[in-house]
Amino acid sequence: MADCARKGRTRDSMDKSITLPPDEIFRNLENAKRFAIDIGGSLTKLAYYSTVQHKVAKVRSFDHTAKETEGDPLYEISVQEEITARLHFIKFENTYIETCLDFIKDHLVNTETKVIKATGGGAYKFKELIEKKLRLKVDKEDEMTCLIKGCNFVLRNIPHEAFVYAKHADSEFRFQNTHPDIFPYLLINIGSGVSIVKVESEDKFERIGGSSIGGGTFWGLGALLTKTKRFDELLQLASRGQHSSVDMLVKDIYGGAYSSLGLTGDLIASSFGKSATTDKEFSKEDMAKSLLHMISNDIGQLACLYARLHNLSRVYFGGFFIRGHPVTMHTITYSINFFTKGEVQALFLRHEGYLGAIGAFLKGAEEDNPNQYSWGENYAGSSGLMSVSPDLNPMQRARSGTFDMLEMDRLERQLVNLPLLQDPSSYVPDTVDLTEDALAREYWLSCFEDALDGVVKRAVASQPDLPQAAERAEKFRQKYLHKLQTLRHQPL
Amino acid sequence: MADCARKGRTRDSMDKSITLPPDEIFRNLENAKRFAIDIGGSLTKLAYYSTVQHKVAKVRSFDHTAKETEGDPLYEISVQEEITARLHFIKFENTYIETCLDFIKDHLVNTETKVIKATGGGAYKFKELIEKKLRLKVDKEDEMTCLIKGCNFVLRNIPHEAFVYAKHADSEFRFQNTHPDIFPYLLINIGSGVSIVKVESEDKFERIGGSSIGGGTFWGLGALLTKTKRFDELLQLASRGQHSSVDMLVKDIYGGAYSSLGLTGDLIASSFGKSATTDKEFSKEDMAKSLLHMISNDIGQLACLYARLHNLSRVYFGGFFIRGHPVTMHTITYSINFFTKGEVQALFLRHEGYLGAIGAFLKGAEEDNPNQYSWGENYAGSSGLMSVSPDLNPMQRARSGTFDMLEMDRLERQLVNLPLLQDPSSYVPDTVDLTEDALAREYWLSCFEDALDGVVKRAVASQPDLPQAAERAEKFRQKYLHKLQTLRHQPL
Repeated sequence: MADCARKGRTRDSMDKSITLPPDEIFRNLENAKRFAIDIGGSLTKLAYYSTVQHKVAKVRSFDHTAKETEGDPLYEISVQEEITARLHFIKFENTYIETCLDFIKDHLVNTETKVIKATGGGAYKFKELIEKKLRLKVDKEDEMTCLIKGCNFVLRNIPHEAFVYAKHADSEFRFQNTHPDIFPYLLINIGSGVSIVKVESEDKFERIGGSSIGGGTFWGLGALLTKTKRFDELLQLASRGQHSSVDMLVKDIYGGAYSSLGLTGDLIASSFGKSATTDKEFSKEDMAKSLLHMISNDIGQLACLYARLHNLSRVYFGGFFIRGHPVTMHTITYSINFFTKGEVQALFLRHEGYLGAIGAFLKGAEEDNPNQYSWGENYAGSSGLMSVSPDLNPMQRARSGTFDMLEMDRLERQLVNLPLLQDPSSYVPDTVDLTEDALAREYWLSCFEDALDGVVKRAVASQPDLPQAAERAEKFRQKYLHKLQTLRHQPL
Repeated sequence: MADCARKGRTRDSMDKSITLPPDEIFRNLENAKRFAIDIGGSLTKLAYYSTVQHKVAKVRSFDHTAKETEGDPLYEISVQEEITARLHFIKFENTYIETCLDFIKDHLVNTETKVIKATGGGAYKFKELIEKKLRLKVDKEDEMTCLIKGCNFVLRNIPHEAFVYAKHADSEFRFQNTHPDIFPYLLINIGSGVSIVKVESEDKFERIGGSSIGGGTFWGLGALLTKTKRFDELLQLASRGQHSSVDMLVKDIYGGAYSSLGLTGDLIASSFGKSATTDKEFSKEDMAKSLLHMISNDIGQLACLYARLHNLSRVYFGGFFIRGHPVTMHTITYSINFFTKGEVQALFLRHEGYLGAIGAFLKGAEEDNPNQYSWGENYAGSSGLMSVSPDLNPMQRARSGTFDMLEMDRLERQLVNLPLLQDPSSYVPDTVDLTEDALAREYWLSCFEDALDGVVKRAVASQPDLPQAAERAEKFRQKYLHKLQTLRHQPL
């Protein structure tokens, strides 16, 4: 069901005092066309299409084997102007919506755009505001259709979009290779409630099930039990709690395992079973943890049953209950492993927050045939995975969580499988995933660092006539080194 | 999972002050042999086997067609002593266990019995007490095995054991005819947690699933939310509440139905979704109702999915969460109808509370081959269905809920299908169910009432030599009339 955070923050007055840095977010707004907006309960996701003009330096080396003359250039550089199509996605809290709309209006040069595609539960609520501010007609699109369209797009176009979460493994995230054939799959969208959607092809999907026990239940019951109204705070409470002080375990009933039924002693027999008859006070942390387990296990079981009933092995989880929260991904993964005995893997999506916005955008851009091209993530313009997780670094989230970005460049030609491959689906390229292989990562990062001084020297040497060459090269050195250090600490 | 009420009442001191009326409960204790006991969280169920000696009056009519003489008797009555095997089952609150054990010890004449079969979570806890009081060795039997054995026995032997609950129908209870073939079926046992058991034959069953969201969760979360510690009180709160003030409905998100997905506006999108962001206080009644819906719907959906996965159409619900509570049966039934679109019916059992005790008893009585006989419910010695329901008549429950009984007589020969029937399973006897057909019930009760005076006259006339004949006949008239009136008010 739709994002339920709906009524969360909107009671606060709109925050108009922030100043947006135009170089960092809403980039290339001057050439923007085709807008789409997905307004959830607490977050707004804006999408637009833009063309980027940039200089491409083409380098041609000379053949020096024949005759070398001192002073002859080693290579020739020709600078060309190129235009690339780029998709921009920006996610920000609903509180900033007015400021953002003002900013867009002020920086938008292109006036051909007449319509903005809108989806999400908030599309209705903010319709008037958007139409007034942007002077664009709001055109509503079906939420579920946009969600699925967006999901298909990221699964097809973004390498390593899906990942398996393994808390106790060497690397928490195990990214999945993109399959040429993404269908069929099951999407479990956990908003306030749960929607279970079977997706069979680009245009064919069916909501085969759902449950009212979802993110809104965690939030709502959690608020009643702990008097904590903030969703992230509830998750933090849960991560510190012990569910066994609230839950009745199998061993609390039978003194140990119930072996003949295959039930281990630590299995939860009854969620909140201990609070039925005990008069003691339970801690907020323990109750929040018990609640998280109860809801995650239930969703996990339902997901497995629907997957088995419909013979589906790929199960993706999305929605605001997930949104990159490690504690939630861990309990969902645990539950799926338990119920399917490892037969089904819980898969999460790096960009699940953008699915609706991407889908709405695609609906409006169908004449540009975006599905006929291949798109690549522009890492320089996109936020990393962990910027959305509140647990790992709450400080960082407080800053970077405000705006989150995804940029995708249209590639010059469509990517296809190498035609010489006998069976493309079984081909495993002989590559190393540096996000997984820590040793290899360290090795290559050191290589790049060691080579840097040499590169800088060559760069200066290549432009002997430019007085700022040394200064520019030093700037590049600093920037490059900083990037390498960031990668070392946050390989994702 | 096991009855969770486990720790409910046992904190109270044992109530030893009650005096048990020996004529009414623990009948025929003198000849009792083979005891079994099932101790759940709040209720103890005791089973024993006894022989009953009773006079059977055999009436032989004379052939009057040939020659009639004034003064000749119309028929001849011969009184014979007969011995019938009878199974007794008594259910009482754990609080009374000590008093009951004392009573049994005092009235038990037969001393051949050395062992008492015991099952249920409380079997361990009360082991010493039982062994000390009764001087019988406690022999523990597996809980799930007893439950299934008992379930098979009642389904096979008690006519109209299973029923469908329909709150708004003419008759709330629609009893099911006993099928000659009871397998396979699905048993959803809702104790503190939920066990989902597939039963394929007398000895073959498998726990194919379960959930930690069960009766203990209703009780535990209910106690935390409403500060009400009593299970029945929580159910009464729930029956007066409005879930829509706590739950987020589809129409709260979309302003109406989400028609393209087939979701009506009144469907619960998120249980407790409204309490996530609203600051208002919620009433105990509304929260209890929302909780009841949340749990019942979840169990209903799981039951449906398991039934579909295993191709089972008969789904029985039992456990302390059900125990004849109309509000629970209604929400479970509603949920099953919703999820299976009417393909699966939720079936409840009249004697579900006795299943474990019956099973444990059967385990101990295997040498008597109880499964080779047919058994019939002795209605005179059994409590009616509604005596356990707290809602309909709380006053009545306060009295009769303390002790509840089931007696079964062994029939002289095993009941079999009429061998002349071509297809016994499709045979529908041309009978009228007076519990369902109110018009026919009224007609027949009136017939019996009208005929009563005539019957009494004939009874007096048949015993011309007995001076107390008139007095006895009058007593019979009173008793009979009283029974008819009870049947009129409580046809079940």
